[in-house]
Amino acid sequence: MTLSDALLADLAAVLGPRLSTSAGERALHAQSESHIQAGPPDAVAYPHSTEEVARIAALCARHRVPVVAWGAGTSLEGHALAVQGGVTVDFRDMNRVLAVYPEDMLCVVQPGLTREELNAWLRDTGLFFPVDPGANASLGGMASTRASGTTAVRYGTMRDNVLGLEVVLAGGEVIRTGSSAPKSSAGYDLTALFVGAEGTLGLITELTLRLHGQPEAVSAATCAFADMGAAVDCVIATIQTGLPMARIEFLDPATVAACNAFSGTDLPLAPQLMVEFHGSPAGVAEQAERFGAIAAEHGSRGFLWARAPEDRKQLWKMRHEAYRAILASRPGATAIVTDVCVPISALAEAVEETRADIAASGLPGPILGHVGDGNFHAILLINPADPREAATAKALATRMAERALRLGGTITGEHGVGFGKLPLMAAEHGAAWAVMGHIKRALDPHDLMNPGKLVPQPKVP
Amino acid sequence: MTLSDALLADLAAVLGPRLSTSAGERALHAQSESHIQAGPPDAVAYPHSTEEVARIAALCARHRVPVVAWGAGTSLEGHALAVQGGVTVDFRDMNRVLAVYPEDMLCVVQPGLTREELNAWLRDTGLFFPVDPGANASLGGMASTRASGTTAVRYGTMRDNVLGLEVVLAGGEVIRTGSSAPKSSAGYDLTALFVGAEGTLGLITELTLRLHGQPEAVSAATCAFADMGAAVDCVIATIQTGLPMARIEFLDPATVAACNAFSGTDLPLAPQLMVEFHGSPAGVAEQAERFGAIAAEHGSRGFLWARAPEDRKQLWKMRHEAYRAILASRPGATAIVTDVCVPISALAEAVEETRADIAASGLPGPILGHVGDGNFHAILLINPADPREAATAKALATRMAERALRLGGTITGEHGVGFGKLPLMAAEHGAAWAVMGHIKRALDPHDLMNPGKLVPQPKVP
Repeated sequence: MTLSDALLADLAAVLGPRLSTSAGERALHAQSESHIQAGPPDAVAYPHSTEEVARIAALCARHRVPVVAWGAGTSLEGHALAVQGGVTVDFRDMNRVLAVYPEDMLCVVQPGLTREELNAWLRDTGLFFPVDPGANASLGGMASTRASGTTAVRYGTMRDNVLGLEVVLAGGEVIRTGSSAPKSSAGYDLTALFVGAEGTLGLITELTLRLHGQPEAVSAATCAFADMGAAVDCVIATIQTGLPMARIEFLDPATVAACNAFSGTDLPLAPQLMVEFHGSPAGVAEQAERFGAIAAEHGSRGFLWARAPEDRKQLWKMRHEAYRAILASRPGATAIVTDVCVPISALAEAVEETRADIAASGLPGPILGHVGDGNFHAILLINPADPREAATAKALATRMAERALRLGGTITGEHGVGFGKLPLMAAEHGAAWAVMGHIKRALDPHDLMNPGKLVPQPKVP
Repeated sequence: MTLSDALLADLAAVLGPRLSTSAGERALHAQSESHIQAGPPDAVAYPHSTEEVARIAALCARHRVPVVAWGAGTSLEGHALAVQGGVTVDFRDMNRVLAVYPEDMLCVVQPGLTREELNAWLRDTGLFFPVDPGANASLGGMASTRASGTTAVRYGTMRDNVLGLEVVLAGGEVIRTGSSAPKSSAGYDLTALFVGAEGTLGLITELTLRLHGQPEAVSAATCAFADMGAAVDCVIATIQTGLPMARIEFLDPATVAACNAFSGTDLPLAPQLMVEFHGSPAGVAEQAERFGAIAAEHGSRGFLWARAPEDRKQLWKMRHEAYRAILASRPGATAIVTDVCVPISALAEAVEETRADIAASGLPGPILGHVGDGNFHAILLINPADPREAATAKALATRMAERALRLGGTITGEHGVGFGKLPLMAAEHGAAWAVMGHIKRALDPHDLMNPGKLVPQPKVP
């Protein structure tokens, strides 16, 4: 689409030089960290305030032009790509911490702030924001995709850690959802509706986030198991005893090999659990001891403890580098990152079937995941010059999603729908998908807020 | 309204003798545990299956007749009253546990099952359902009002413990929300939308609930403080250290006096905290010790420990009887139960201002609450024969809600809106209340699902 001169003039009157139609800026907003690409937006806006965002939304509504929110550009299913053109609203400059309330363990932030920036800000307060999807994503983007990551087993996902929002609706109206009270029964949970809506219902301009106390003591470890089933049974037993694990991550032998090569570690090439405990010194010691006993009952071997902060840092650096390590294991390859989540009782079956399926395909596809949540990823490595490999990988990803649904799970545990997973939504939700469409039309009748994503489309791309 | 003979015949064809239009059955469904009363429904249906509920909804839609869900009748804001007549769907007979999945710590239940019935069923599984609003409410009703109670500080509210739903929509269509996976990013969080919707968007016919491991060890205690501020500061310090308290309840001196008289306890007449710790034996001992140290720093006195199960049972029996104890403290009185929730930093101010306001009114109004959540109730005791006292109490309740909003809180922490709190919704939500109305109209265009509640009305009753 081409934006009219009238709209461009009106937007420029609001934003001045912070509205760009340059090819370079537009191209930057047509890229993402995934294999999914789409045409660039027609313009990129860099607002400084909620009021400016509201004026952008109102102008675009008047001219029937799409509005797409942009955070850090780290999403994996094409969420922030302007598939129907329009104006991309880049929240780069709306990245302030507006308030921290230590007694209430809350903060109020702008959507462009990243989680690492927030935690750097909080360092001396004794508090931290726990949701950790790996990437240094923006908090607005994390809310919009209902992100989670390694700590969700203890601290929950963005669903659990966003207490309230300020949102600019399709016509430019500004609403506030939630309150600063820890809970409420006052009507529909609009906060929960906008968290995970991927910008299709409005633009998040402010977030009230729950904070948590920095743990007094932390201990971490890796341990190996004979097979995936033993590792999962260990996790189930651990959770059932009520042990408040801060993280329980799974790495398959292929992932371990890639990490060893990339990060210089020396873990045994076996299914590994990486665990972390948070609490008082005595509490952490007791948790570690109890976990050790449960793991031993399930045949664990090779416990490697990382009690010193620098050892722990190295361990989690390795985990956070796993994606890059896997990419480096096939030079020149592109990754298709899958993301499914199943009931934990079905996790071993889901992972084993997936491994067999990947092995039969001939593609490299190491598996890792947030085993305490039943959530795992296969990183499928393809030669970008070979369309057959891309087709093979996409077929594998689709079968993973279908397998997850058959086992009572979901097509995406934490990455979201975007347009990459749009073709799978009907299979997951059935008639409930149409209900999402009704809600979308009620709040955005002209389909201007991040169109082409999440809800049923006139024609699925 | 009067139901047409055609509708009654169609409903009778579905339900047989389980459709009643008797004055007695209808009158039973015009009562609630609160002071709020409304005219009876025109008929009461007792379905046995989702299919029957769907047929009731479809028939009522065709005849443009309201449909109101009924659980255990324990709601406090008139949620289940048929204020515009129509058919009340009483879930009395849909009260089965459909499945328990111990490895996934999930169960699937019908909406008429009560929380006590569920926990009796679970007793030998090592698992329990923690949400405890005091009343033996139905689980469908608890989901619909987003109930919480004494354990929310540790285990969360219904928002956190409902993983999926089966819902019959206004036209009779049946949808499923959520999955059995612990988390998902697959589109709008419809589960969270229906939890707290008070039956205005559809009828819940099945719930997938999170279960928790029965704690290996439990310890409870009461302790007194010089004033409310010291008690709240103790709670804030406790939460900030990350101590995983299972319950932290507050009783004001008037509540303590009523409980002593009713339950035969002998607590000092001072602001009291009631606390409970769940965990391993060593973990509970450490938690109790750490809490004791924090409480001592805040001037606590008179720690009474209840380590033996029978002592603990007696303690929480006293707490659960507090409402009846307060009612008994003014023979012949009716209670108006208020329910506000504020950021915990504002709790002492909110409670002290409320106490002063109640004292100035001349009405008895003991205060108690879930202090770990910032949620408290004043039980205003009025002479039902004196309309001036009712007016005074309602004005106090309105000022409490307005005070909560001024302090960043909410007009209802856990009881919900019904029609009792409808006049306060605009003050809490501003323009966001209209968004709730848009969603309501999108899913229920003829306003048949529990009309007259929660969303903006043509004319506020």
